[in-house]
Amino acid sequence: MVDFSPVIPIAGLAALATAAYLTLRVLRLPRGDERMQEIERAIQEGARAFMRRQYTTIAIIAAVVATLFAIAIGATRGLAEGLRTAIAFSLGSALSAASGYIGMHISIRANSRTANEGLTSFSGALRTAIRGGAVSGLTIVSFSLLGVWGLFEAYNAWFGSEGPDRVVLSMVGFGFGASLIALFAQLGGGIYTKAADVGADLVGKVEAGIPEDDPRNPAVVADLVGDNVGDCAGRGADLFESTAAENIGAMVLGVALVGVFGVNAIFFPLVARSFGLLSTIAGIFIVRAREDERPMSALNRGYYVTLVIAAVLFGLAAYALLQGPGGSTWLYLFLAGLTGILTSLAFVFITQYYTEARYRPVKEIATASETGPATNILAGFSLGLEATAIPIVVVAIAILAAFKLGELALPGGGFYGTAVATMGMLATAAYILAEDTFGPITDNAAGILEMSGKSAEARARMDKLDAAGNTTKALTKGYAVGSAALAAFLLFQAYLDEVKILRGTATPPVINIGVPEVFVGAMVGVMIVFLFSALAIRAVGRTAWEIIGDVRAQFKEKPGIMAGTEKPDYARSVDICTRAALRHMIAPGLLAVLGPTVVGLVLRVTPYAAESVGALLMVGTIAGIVLALVFNTGGGAWDNAKKFIELTKGGKGTPTHKAAVVGDTVGDPFKDTAGPSLHILVKLLSTITLVLAVLFV
Amino acid sequence: MVDFSPVIPIAGLAALATAAYLTLRVLRLPRGDERMQEIERAIQEGARAFMRRQYTTIAIIAAVVATLFAIAIGATRGLAEGLRTAIAFSLGSALSAASGYIGMHISIRANSRTANEGLTSFSGALRTAIRGGAVSGLTIVSFSLLGVWGLFEAYNAWFGSEGPDRVVLSMVGFGFGASLIALFAQLGGGIYTKAADVGADLVGKVEAGIPEDDPRNPAVVADLVGDNVGDCAGRGADLFESTAAENIGAMVLGVALVGVFGVNAIFFPLVARSFGLLSTIAGIFIVRAREDERPMSALNRGYYVTLVIAAVLFGLAAYALLQGPGGSTWLYLFLAGLTGILTSLAFVFITQYYTEARYRPVKEIATASETGPATNILAGFSLGLEATAIPIVVVAIAILAAFKLGELALPGGGFYGTAVATMGMLATAAYILAEDTFGPITDNAAGILEMSGKSAEARARMDKLDAAGNTTKALTKGYAVGSAALAAFLLFQAYLDEVKILRGTATPPVINIGVPEVFVGAMVGVMIVFLFSALAIRAVGRTAWEIIGDVRAQFKEKPGIMAGTEKPDYARSVDICTRAALRHMIAPGLLAVLGPTVVGLVLRVTPYAAESVGALLMVGTIAGIVLALVFNTGGGAWDNAKKFIELTKGGKGTPTHKAAVVGDTVGDPFKDTAGPSLHILVKLLSTITLVLAVLFV
Repeated sequence: MVDFSPVIPIAGLAALATAAYLTLRVLRLPRGDERMQEIERAIQEGARAFMRRQYTTIAIIAAVVATLFAIAIGATRGLAEGLRTAIAFSLGSALSAASGYIGMHISIRANSRTANEGLTSFSGALRTAIRGGAVSGLTIVSFSLLGVWGLFEAYNAWFGSEGPDRVVLSMVGFGFGASLIALFAQLGGGIYTKAADVGADLVGKVEAGIPEDDPRNPAVVADLVGDNVGDCAGRGADLFESTAAENIGAMVLGVALVGVFGVNAIFFPLVARSFGLLSTIAGIFIVRAREDERPMSALNRGYYVTLVIAAVLFGLAAYALLQGPGGSTWLYLFLAGLTGILTSLAFVFITQYYTEARYRPVKEIATASETGPATNILAGFSLGLEATAIPIVVVAIAILAAFKLGELALPGGGFYGTAVATMGMLATAAYILAEDTFGPITDNAAGILEMSGKSAEARARMDKLDAAGNTTKALTKGYAVGSAALAAFLLFQAYLDEVKILRGTATPPVINIGVPEVFVGAMVGVMIVFLFSALAIRAVGRTAWEIIGDVRAQFKEKPGIMAGTEKPDYARSVDICTRAALRHMIAPGLLAVLGPTVVGLVLRVTPYAAESVGALLMVGTIAGIVLALVFNTGGGAWDNAKKFIELTKGGKGTPTHKAAVVGDTVGDPFKDTAGPSLHILVKLLSTITLVLAVLFV
Repeated sequence: MVDFSPVIPIAGLAALATAAYLTLRVLRLPRGDERMQEIERAIQEGARAFMRRQYTTIAIIAAVVATLFAIAIGATRGLAEGLRTAIAFSLGSALSAASGYIGMHISIRANSRTANEGLTSFSGALRTAIRGGAVSGLTIVSFSLLGVWGLFEAYNAWFGSEGPDRVVLSMVGFGFGASLIALFAQLGGGIYTKAADVGADLVGKVEAGIPEDDPRNPAVVADLVGDNVGDCAGRGADLFESTAAENIGAMVLGVALVGVFGVNAIFFPLVARSFGLLSTIAGIFIVRAREDERPMSALNRGYYVTLVIAAVLFGLAAYALLQGPGGSTWLYLFLAGLTGILTSLAFVFITQYYTEARYRPVKEIATASETGPATNILAGFSLGLEATAIPIVVVAIAILAAFKLGELALPGGGFYGTAVATMGMLATAAYILAEDTFGPITDNAAGILEMSGKSAEARARMDKLDAAGNTTKALTKGYAVGSAALAAFLLFQAYLDEVKILRGTATPPVINIGVPEVFVGAMVGVMIVFLFSALAIRAVGRTAWEIIGDVRAQFKEKPGIMAGTEKPDYARSVDICTRAALRHMIAPGLLAVLGPTVVGLVLRVTPYAAESVGALLMVGTIAGIVLALVFNTGGGAWDNAKKFIELTKGGKGTPTHKAAVVGDTVGDPFKDTAGPSLHILVKLLSTITLVLAVLFV
């Protein structure tokens, strides 16, 4: 058997080297004229200020949580176990924070360069934006890969003699740390970005009657900052967590198969991820567009290249590492991986269908806007509800197919089959992340051209990219929710295994929802998801309210702003938005952390605490995924219905457009705060229950 | 042991006699002047036309379903079993249809009489309206009671020798028939009422600029008809089904306890319901108000009287019928019943808190309306999401407490404890239903006074009653969803028992959602609930669209309508609305019926079909209840926020009010179509899986 494990550090370092190279290439480009640089600096300052304060807040929360959990676990399972979990937790949170920060760092530098390229060349602007995005994608996924691999090697050297199962189970704190940071990063960033957006629009467009991105609006910089801290940092932390938790979960399941595949069973997930990274590098360098091409065609080309290479390498890895008792063991597992790859493709297509203006759904919302905002809202909301059906059916088929393929591969291998499918689904994560960060870069670039008063031609060029950025952002969300759904099943299994080990029973616990305590756990799981969404949406409204107050105050204090004779105080708006967003992220964040903990502890008076928490986890996950689909799809469709009306139905200023703006505004916190936060919530539920399982048995 | 079973027919007949007496009293009242009578006739004609056509459609669907199921069950379980299920099904559907029809019949006669009373006396109008409503409440609950009792006696005489378990299990078709009729009655009525409402408002208020209930609007009669067919007939069928299914489910569980309580274990649910009916008769006659009193105070007084009498009689029934091995068996079970009674009270209070303008939630929506429709929508929607938390916690506590009390009462009696709690919760069903029908009666009466141009004083008097009607309608929905949640747990148990009996195993099946097939069933359950809601909401939009088209056409064809020189063709609008509503109810209705059937049949290729359907049922029920809470609360709060703004914040015509109208319009299909249909959907899931269990094992 060839030892493939060296490919892990090689791929990780290659991805980091590529990211460094792309950074240099992007930074070498000119940043445009003085006015453009000035705006870029304002965005940078705002983003840095937000990130600094946000990470300070999160670091305090993380330190408190780490200490509490280390004590709790130490008290029940011994000091060593508590320490190991705490170390893994700290590493996971630190790497998550670092990858979010680095990705945002380059993205807010790529925006002015993309804008400057856009003055002359569409293709140049596209390449600059996707390369800036690729820095994020590659950094985040390689940090996740190297972090998990490094932790495994270190723990193996430290206490490998206790057996691989103890090593791998001690690593689950890494995923918990990553998901805790991701939750707060997404919540804080998501609240910030949408509050700034809604606030700037309401007070600027509606009250003052000035266009979007107008430099006279004091909240305009806060709005541009928001795109970076919400979309880049938030989704980056989200997919960092996905890849990390999936790797660890798959390694947990792999431990049981060491007898079949040797240590390869544990390394396979990491090798598969490494190959995915290498495929992404190839895909990124492929992306280039003709001047008259649809930007999505160019981006999709890169995606398909990534996908095909990833599929081939996946097969190679399965053939090399997963030779089992039957001759076709590797083949069945490869097919399970292919199921995951196809699932990711399906989610990309489904999302496009529901959110692009070319198809029925968005057109229906546009038509409904003709009779006013109420029918626009009803059309968009019922579309969101409807859009849950096909994704759920796809995930259901993927789970059953992957499970069956796993069983065919080897007896009792069903759950490993679903794990391999998840690896397939996440193989292209780095490319998808690059596309995601492409969104805020082009959004910012368009804003910079608008604010610095550049030619209509250049702005039209950038608007085309900006629209593609909206699509890629929607795609990423579809992909993130799909992978969360598929990964969930694997993480449940890890939880059940953990409870089995802790109880010392021969079989995992049975989550029988016919038992009252377990049924109550399921109900509470759904309730947490709904209450969390309520708090997230409300936080946006309350934060927006504070920004509106500030902008009104600035217009009053400096009457010259509207005339263009006085400059608004952008930094003050940024600061107010920052404080408010961070204050309002606490309540939903605590609910996510404390909800499952409290249920588990309260139900310890019954014999079913661990089962009840299991039901909370599983049914809460279903509810979270379904509700996230409603929010993401509804929000994306409203947004594009508005854009569609601007292009076709008489454009801005008409009653139809006004009705569509209402839907777009409602959709903002749906798709950029509540929806993405729910992806992370469901993964946090998995990791927190896994880490805290010791307290419930 | 005293034989209490004669109380069942006595109470049922007493309730029917009271209903007949109240009918006579109401019909003897004068119907007002010629103009009022004319409007009443138009409403009657429209309502009858709708009901006739709706019941024809439903009868065809029911006949097809009954035949198919009888064949399927006959093929698997023998001809006799198929026939018994078909007979029970037909009786359940026929009684459900009859009680909906009778209730609506008197309600559309009470409206002009209430309006005429309202010309002179507030108290007289209140009494007329609640007595008209009581005819519905008493008829429906006594039909349910007598139907279940009669069916049991008949089947017992026919094949009682096969044992009480076979008798009771053959009765489950009754509940299925009732829930199938209820689903279509609520869907058709709910789509009709809200499409007419939204359509009349959009084209009347917004386009033509004429006030609500203006006789020049061709859709105005359709709107008034809608209140009757949606609220009366819909909710009536809903609670007919609740009480019937709960009785049968509790009898199924009671069969297992015949060894302990004798045949009383089976009769107890019916005796408890009988006492509830007698309590309601007392409560209804108590209601009278001073001229200057808040109408809710008078109605609440009647409710509290009903509640206290019901609690005392419940204790008496438990003492007399449930004397078990331990001396305090009856006491624990009485306490379980009291848990249910308190739960119903809690739901009434919670609903009031979230939907009355006196409290924070509605005020927050009103404040959010100041910044436009988007913030109004976000505030209302996040409120709906938030409002799921306390009800779920209350139901969770009730289930655990009732289960524990049941276990204390007798070993293994936990599930019977939850059944007894549900009986307690439903003890006041008839009174709640009377309050519910009070809503459309006062709504219609207010419309009649408006359309016939009566004095401002009389209209203000009736508006006060109309506002109380909105509150009572919201209360009924809260009560209906709460009782659906509590009853669900009992119906799950019936399903598990049925599968156990069919399989001939010693223990019921284990619904372990850690198994892939079962997990997939749970996911699909949630998905069905969301897709069903999407179809229901969309149906309202599409039906409204057809009405808008007709009204526009009428204004064009008869230019004299607006000048008051020509009369609009009310009947044509009613007819178009009727056809469209019935056409659009088919898709969601079929989804509800076919969804679980298809999942069960497809998954028969695995060994987990029955378990998977169980998970679909249980998790789908949770999702349905939670989503219904969102719809009901959000819709109710938006409605009252609009009313609050009319009274306090500058009133109609202001931008704040316009924003609130958007929320109210969005809330209409939420609270009157999707929400109430979801209550029935979750019960239909229970009864259909129970009936079809034979196909899945």
